[in-house]
Amino acid sequence: MTETSEAAAVTAAVLVIGDEILSGRTKDKNIGTIADYCTAIGIDLKEVRIVPDEADRIVAAIDALRGAYTYLFTTGGIGPTHDDITADCVAAAFGVSIDVDPRAKAMLLERHKPEDLNEARLRMARIPAGADLITNPISKAPGFRIGNVIVMAGVPGIMQAMLDNVGPTLVTGAKVLSETIEAGNLPEGTYAGGLAAIAKAHATVSIGSYPSMTPNGFANRIVVRGRDAAALAAARADVDALLDGLRGGMSG
Amino acid sequence: MTETSEAAAVTAAVLVIGDEILSGRTKDKNIGTIADYCTAIGIDLKEVRIVPDEADRIVAAIDALRGAYTYLFTTGGIGPTHDDITADCVAAAFGVSIDVDPRAKAMLLERHKPEDLNEARLRMARIPAGADLITNPISKAPGFRIGNVIVMAGVPGIMQAMLDNVGPTLVTGAKVLSETIEAGNLPEGTYAGGLAAIAKAHATVSIGSYPSMTPNGFANRIVVRGRDAAALAAARADVDALLDGLRGGMSG
Repeated sequence: MTETSEAAAVTAAVLVIGDEILSGRTKDKNIGTIADYCTAIGIDLKEVRIVPDEADRIVAAIDALRGAYTYLFTTGGIGPTHDDITADCVAAAFGVSIDVDPRAKAMLLERHKPEDLNEARLRMARIPAGADLITNPISKAPGFRIGNVIVMAGVPGIMQAMLDNVGPTLVTGAKVLSETIEAGNLPEGTYAGGLAAIAKAHATVSIGSYPSMTPNGFANRIVVRGRDAAALAAARADVDALLDGLRGGMSG
Repeated sequence: MTETSEAAAVTAAVLVIGDEILSGRTKDKNIGTIADYCTAIGIDLKEVRIVPDEADRIVAAIDALRGAYTYLFTTGGIGPTHDDITADCVAAAFGVSIDVDPRAKAMLLERHKPEDLNEARLRMARIPAGADLITNPISKAPGFRIGNVIVMAGVPGIMQAMLDNVGPTLVTGAKVLSETIEAGNLPEGTYAGGLAAIAKAHATVSIGSYPSMTPNGFANRIVVRGRDAAALAAARADVDALLDGLRGGMSG
């Protein structure tokens, strides 16, 4: 990976393609995986969209997102069936032709006998002109990258393998560092005012408060994120002092 | 719920608001819950977006989605801390004022003593002018509905309670019926051609093929969806016949 200067943040969006996610039949797991991956390598995931298997909707989303961010990752719609239209939509978005790619066909032939490589399976070798392939160690049918758009499978295991393969080729930014401070059952309403003041005083870090429910009531966490370790430590110290003060106040 | 005529599909979008989802720290569970809920009551979920805690991005997404679909459900960003800016963004999108709502304040007083209702907690009673409240049986701070936008909490348990409360007030369409046909380990590439022909012949239903990986290889499912029971049954019969023919061909 090539790390950019601190000034230039590297951003990304995810486009999940598939009726099955929108109907609820399949629960997406790829968004969280890609989010974790981006955070780990210093890419800011800034937007996610989920759209149905409709060509005009897919093309519009590809165009909106590839123009707005450094990278666009897509998942889903690159299998052999009629509802797999992602590759065609990417070609349409880029205004390039799409046809069976000899490199992709060779990959499919590692898994299928030539006589089994029917028209449907050959759909998986249709790649927009000018794209680089992303190998798929599991079922061979490749993903691909064209421009800043990275096209991956929807099956989580395959998506993850493709992400691992394409990741090292990406330009990345300075990693976002984060500190998690457990507020526990200290109610958000008791520290929200102080936290807002800390957030204002430490403008180079972002501070969030995240409640979750447990069988014993709320369990709250404060997360401080930023690229500068010293700024992060200073903000965290202020949050710790705020919470310590409130805990002292509650027990005292 | 009021069921509309079959002709008018009722559509929806979901807008998930929160840096913590995009950083991967929190894995979203609300999209799948809302998708299931919409499918169950006959609303077509057509798009999902996830955006960060940035006012301009939130307002732009609210405006794009509320204009394009019958309903927009939002989750996240209605707590007491400084990063909870959803209500303000909704007010900005609708061009209405926002202030502490006496009804919402009364709800908060069911949980908090008056002397504990500090400025931060009162943020949770700030409701755009003209909105209806959505009660929150768990932590009292309400969601709200303004126009076609339904604003809910991000904590999954609270979101679900709010969805249950607002659901019966929504206009719904004819339920989408679906049939799932297990193709098992029959490879997608063997039935994709036949399935495409069936999809073409049964244009009023939608047919998808969904691979998943198991320890024993792929397990494929075909799902036929539509609002007309007879059309659905006819399409399903053709899919069954296709798969039976292929299984016979493989064993024979």
